[in-house]
Order: sequence, then structure tokens, then C-alpha cells
Amino acid sequence: MKNIDVCLTPDLLHLHKDTLENSIVVVADVFRATSCMVTAFAHGVDCIIPVATIEECRQWQERGYYGAAERNAKMVEGFELNNSPFSYMDERLRGAKIAMTTTNGTLAITRSRNAVKVLVGSFLNLEAVARYLRSQSYDVLVLCAGWKGRPNLEDTLFAGALIERLKEEYSMMEDSAIMAWRMYNQGKNNLPHFLANSSHIRRLQRLGIHKDITYCLQHDLFDVVPVLRGNTLVCIEV
Amino acid sequence: MKNIDVCLTPDLLHLHKDTLENSIVVVADVFRATSCMVTAFAHGVDCIIPVATIEECRQWQERGYYGAAERNAKMVEGFELNNSPFSYMDERLRGAKIAMTTTNGTLAITRSRNAVKVLVGSFLNLEAVARYLRSQSYDVLVLCAGWKGRPNLEDTLFAGALIERLKEEYSMMEDSAIMAWRMYNQGKNNLPHFLANSSHIRRLQRLGIHKDITYCLQHDLFDVVPVLRGNTLVCIEV
Repeated sequence: MKNIDVCLTPDLLHLHKDTLENSIVVVADVFRATSCMVTAFAHGVDCIIPVATIEECRQWQERGYYGAAERNAKMVEGFELNNSPFSYMDERLRGAKIAMTTTNGTLAITRSRNAVKVLVGSFLNLEAVARYLRSQSYDVLVLCAGWKGRPNLEDTLFAGALIERLKEEYSMMEDSAIMAWRMYNQGKNNLPHFLANSSHIRRLQRLGIHKDITYCLQHDLFDVVPVLRGNTLVCIEV
Repeated sequence: MKNIDVCLTPDLLHLHKDTLENSIVVVADVFRATSCMVTAFAHGVDCIIPVATIEECRQWQERGYYGAAERNAKMVEGFELNNSPFSYMDERLRGAKIAMTTTNGTLAITRSRNAVKVLVGSFLNLEAVARYLRSQSYDVLVLCAGWKGRPNLEDTLFAGALIERLKEEYSMMEDSAIMAWRMYNQGKNNLPHFLANSSHIRRLQRLGIHKDITYCLQHDLFDVVPVLRGNTLVCIEV
């Protein structure tokens, strides 16, 4: 039986060093980086390069890429795209190449490079990711992007949601996976309510981004699975 | 209002560096180090020195201390005491000095030294710890000892239980605290059942330690609060 495990924050990724090379990593930064990426691919974007720094993002921009840079939940000046999924629902972006840097999500992706494969997960493409994983023979590690090294509720809930979809075919041996799964089952009937007091919701609400929150918590809108190829995310339809 | 936060494993303690100096840390290694410590003090032990290595433990033993050394949930040969709370219910130990090293718990204690105070928590002395904290003006950080760097269910549940007792007087701002609190409220009516699939329960059950598990999950047996003074744990009665 394949195994599914959860890493609650990139700051604990060192504990999974030995298993990473035999696992597919699913990176989740639900609010909002990975939800943006999934939305972008669903709207025809050609590829996304996740980069660690604003400087790198600028360099890709100079080579003709659209630039998306977010820090502390706000758009960095001088870039075309922000970290709202709605800014990726744009006909202009069909076939576009994007360079993206965010506070947590893009770093989590770049740090997972030693895995067999790195996928991008969100509630929006939950079933697509689950279906793709079922077709593979590898163990799964869900890497929650968290917030500046700390675990967060929304990414943990995504991990639990994915486990819920895979639980017939995968075993969960470790407590982080059990916790995520239990948490999701506690909250799944009303995720917005369950998340109401979370630290990032409070952060986003101060910025007036209710619409993004509601959007990002929708399940199974898109059948796209972004996968890292070299340093670039491309889209597999499943 | 005072704040209560949770660090799910010592491997995330670096994220709390700035707050540690203004916080009281409560270290929990429910299965079984901190439950042993609480039991030992409740049975009249004079002091416990938590040490990081087996070698250090042996050195204290040579100076007349009782030695307690556990690795991977098993007693290390050549020491008097193991990591079962029942081995501390012993008249011989009244007034005794103990040196203790365990896989996770003692390390968590020694790594918390920069805090205002370091307390030892377990379900056995839950209310005593809560009462002591209420009398203090500092923020609280619950440090879960986890298992070799990984978060675990039982210590997270203890963190949630302590929050449940303190929630009128403390705010919880961070998601780890919210998760622990939600988890405890989900499981509190039947903790043994809730923990049945946890990784450490499976580990302990292989060793046939059902009795220890049931014992360690009892709430409020003892009114003792072990506190670190220098390098030594001593007991405050509250």
C-alpha cells in the first residue's frame, strides 16, 4: 500500500529528506499562491516559473515574462499580477509565461525539487490531483506552505482533504497526517466558518479580500494539475 | 490580555526565539517523560536534572543520582529507572535526586532555557499548571516534545487541553494554537480512542505498555508543578 504523509511547514522538510526521493510532493499554499497557479493554468497560461526572490522575478520580467510578486499578502510594486486568483482570469494571459514569487508558496515549491515529482495543489483542483496520484506508484508527501515557517490551518485542511480523497488506497502512518485528516473532517461542512479565526484569514480580511477566500475554498473547479519540470511549472490535464 | 501559543515540535522553536524571553514555556512529552516527572515529584522526589545525553546521565549517576535513560521508548541498560511512570511510584525515591535523559522530552526542556520560566506539563498536573500560569503575568508557549522532530498527537492534545483551561484569560492568535485546541475538543470525550491510531501509541503498544497510556491520559491527579531552576527541575506546590 502506498503511504501519504504531511509536512506541516517547509521548516520541517528536513525530517522528510530520506523519503522525498521516493515521493511525489504536493505543495499547497491555499491562500493564495497555489490557488492562483491552478486558476492561471485553467485559464490557459502556458507556464509559471516559481522564483524565490523579487530580484529574480524582475529578471524574468525583463525577458518578456509577466511578473507576479507578493510579500506579506500584498502585491509588490512594478509587477503586472498580484496574488489574487481573480487577476489570472484574463484573456491576455492565454499562452503567457509568468514568473511568480510569493511569501511562502513559491519557496515551498523550490525547496521540494529533490522529490520524484512536485505538483501544485489547492481545493480548486483537489480531485484532479487525487486522480493523478492514484495513477502513480509513489508515496505522497503533502507540503503545507504555512506562513513564514509556521503551520497554518488552511494548508493543513487541504492536506486533510487530499487524504480524505485517497484514504482507500493510501495508508497514513504519521501523526501529522492523522491530525490534518481529523481537522478536515471536523471542518469540512463549513470551511469558511471553521477558518474564521485563523491568522491568515484575519490578515486577508484586513486587506478586504473576502472574495478571494470564498473562491479558494471551492472544491474541484478545475481539472488541471501543475507539475514542476526543471524550474518551470507546466500543466497536465487529467 | 495574555497570549498563549503552541510550538508543535522543538524543530520549530527557532520561530519563537523573539517571544521566548517574555514567555513561560510549558514542555509536554505526555508519553511519557513529562508524565514520569510529574509522577516522580508527586511521590516525593527532590529534584530531576534533565540531560541531553546518556553519557551525562551516567556522570550524574556516578555522583549518587538515580539514573533514568530512555531511547526509542526503551530503557537503556545500566540505569535504575525507565520511562514508565509506575517506576516512579516508589518509596525508595522519596527525597531522591534523579538525572534523566529521554528521546524527546528532556531535549525540549534543555532547549527552552531562554524562557522566563520552564514548566513541565502533562495531563496529570494540567489544572495545577493552569492555576500557576493564571497567577503569572507572562505569555505562554506550550512546547510539544513530539517524536524526533515531528509533531505528535498526544502532545498537541495536551496543548489543546491547556488552552481549553486558559481560554477565558488568554488569547490565541496563531493557527498552531487554534489547531491544538480544536483537536482537543474533538477528542476530549474519549482520548484513548482518539489516539488509538497515533504513531506513538502503535510504538508503545508493540512494547506492551497499555497501562502507561491509560495512566498518562488521566487529568488532574496531582497538584505539583515542576519548574526549571538553573539546570535542575524542582517542584512548586500550587
